[in-house]
Amino acid sequence: MNPGFTGSPLDRVDHIRSDEEAYSALLSDWRARVLGLDGIAPQVAPEGGLHWQSIADIAENSELILLGIADGKPHFVPITDARGDAFRTPALWSALNSLPAEDAAIYGTAHSLINWHNNHGYCARCGGSTKLFRAGWGRQCTACNAEHFPRTDPVVIMLAEYEGKALVGRQKQFPPGNYSALAGFLEPGESIEEAVRREIKEEASVDCGDVSYVVSQPWPFGGSQLMIACVADAKTQEITLDTNELEDAMWVTKEEARAALADAPDKRFGAPPPFAIAHSLLKHWAEGE
Amino acid sequence: MNPGFTGSPLDRVDHIRSDEEAYSALLSDWRARVLGLDGIAPQVAPEGGLHWQSIADIAENSELILLGIADGKPHFVPITDARGDAFRTPALWSALNSLPAEDAAIYGTAHSLINWHNNHGYCARCGGSTKLFRAGWGRQCTACNAEHFPRTDPVVIMLAEYEGKALVGRQKQFPPGNYSALAGFLEPGESIEEAVRREIKEEASVDCGDVSYVVSQPWPFGGSQLMIACVADAKTQEITLDTNELEDAMWVTKEEARAALADAPDKRFGAPPPFAIAHSLLKHWAEGE
Repeated sequence: MNPGFTGSPLDRVDHIRSDEEAYSALLSDWRARVLGLDGIAPQVAPEGGLHWQSIADIAENSELILLGIADGKPHFVPITDARGDAFRTPALWSALNSLPAEDAAIYGTAHSLINWHNNHGYCARCGGSTKLFRAGWGRQCTACNAEHFPRTDPVVIMLAEYEGKALVGRQKQFPPGNYSALAGFLEPGESIEEAVRREIKEEASVDCGDVSYVVSQPWPFGGSQLMIACVADAKTQEITLDTNELEDAMWVTKEEARAALADAPDKRFGAPPPFAIAHSLLKHWAEGE
Repeated sequence: MNPGFTGSPLDRVDHIRSDEEAYSALLSDWRARVLGLDGIAPQVAPEGGLHWQSIADIAENSELILLGIADGKPHFVPITDARGDAFRTPALWSALNSLPAEDAAIYGTAHSLINWHNNHGYCARCGGSTKLFRAGWGRQCTACNAEHFPRTDPVVIMLAEYEGKALVGRQKQFPPGNYSALAGFLEPGESIEEAVRREIKEEASVDCGDVSYVVSQPWPFGGSQLMIACVADAKTQEITLDTNELEDAMWVTKEEARAALADAPDKRFGAPPPFAIAHSLLKHWAEGE
């Protein structure tokens, strides 16, 4: 299973991030590549895939993040001024559907980091202004010296299973007819298994027992998230919706899930797109993949 | 498997956190209990277990977090002024070894949230001061209104396995002779599986293939972490240490791991304490539990 936004070919070279000499050498390496962006959306090369520039092509005062090294080439991305979230734009959606998996993984990492820098110009401890450090993998307070590191929020996303059927739900903003796995942020003090049971209970009032981990995926939109996909054994069948979270929820068969994933004309519901882990999870459950 | 800090009996009642009327009713409920703390360490009741007070017992200007409800009783914790990390104190260590599992889970949640509040008095987006909202499950900027939610950092912790032996390592600050699973923070743009392989490669230069998830645990110290325990199939055996991270690493047999867990007199190494997930992971691996 290769969920979306995984499979980056870059070596993250953590040891270079805090080694000023080695980092300077990468910056002046003629093979260095810089990711081309429009705001926070990826530029797509004429031949498909991400568009890479040389360091000479970018503005002199650009702040750079070291994404990593592949084929001996250092890869950077500039921190563009883009607080918004490009996810809902048709251009980005289209790019994500066309980018090779490796490129989507690189872009996802860049998106997460740029978004984090744009929202962390100040120190949460003292209110002082922060500056980039560790080659873009952190910010340090100029007043109290506190070190801050990029945030990744764990999110559980899961199918409850009852007598061979899986629970799927839809949020108001989904495309018409689409359903997906339920999901929610894991909270401090919870294990993955506890968060899965709590979220299903909160959103659909279904009680669950055992939880099985399936697969994970980084998700770069709406902040930076770690999507943790699971299947939970439901002990009850009746659904009572939390209408703040879900517009509808229903139990579907494996056959119905396969029809949705295949986009069959007579499908009962529309499935999430291939780059979303809910797609991988539904496929795993419906096909035993 | 019941790893440490899991199994809290409290219903987190998310729906009440943003319902002012329902929240006020809980605050004036005569059954309400408030967790007793010394700084950020738990007070232990004479009969063992956490010490609970009534709301009348605490200072009038205390800010409270709603931990949840159990047996009809609302449970709160005051935000004490405790930026430090109590983990390394003998008193806390001793309390953790004596607290019933359910109490340790409640205390862990409280510790994570208090620590987060103490380090997030200012808005990372604009530098303005923040105030508590959502019954203690968030802070809102008084200047730009940005909403901030408690942070939980995913950490991978894993055993690489090669020909029936597992890779364990020791950090300088461990008690003499103790070894544990390798571990590290998951970064933006990585799946769990990718982070596991990267960390083992960075710390010991061992290449791994397939990664299997085992279990997870919240860890309330040094920030709030989600510990994700895995076993990885090693493809190489030679160890080259990153001495910034590890003082030593070695391959151990299941028999040696069982002797460590049993604290046998002739054990080859000391095992991590039962409330650490490395203990659960090592036990799972060594005993097939």
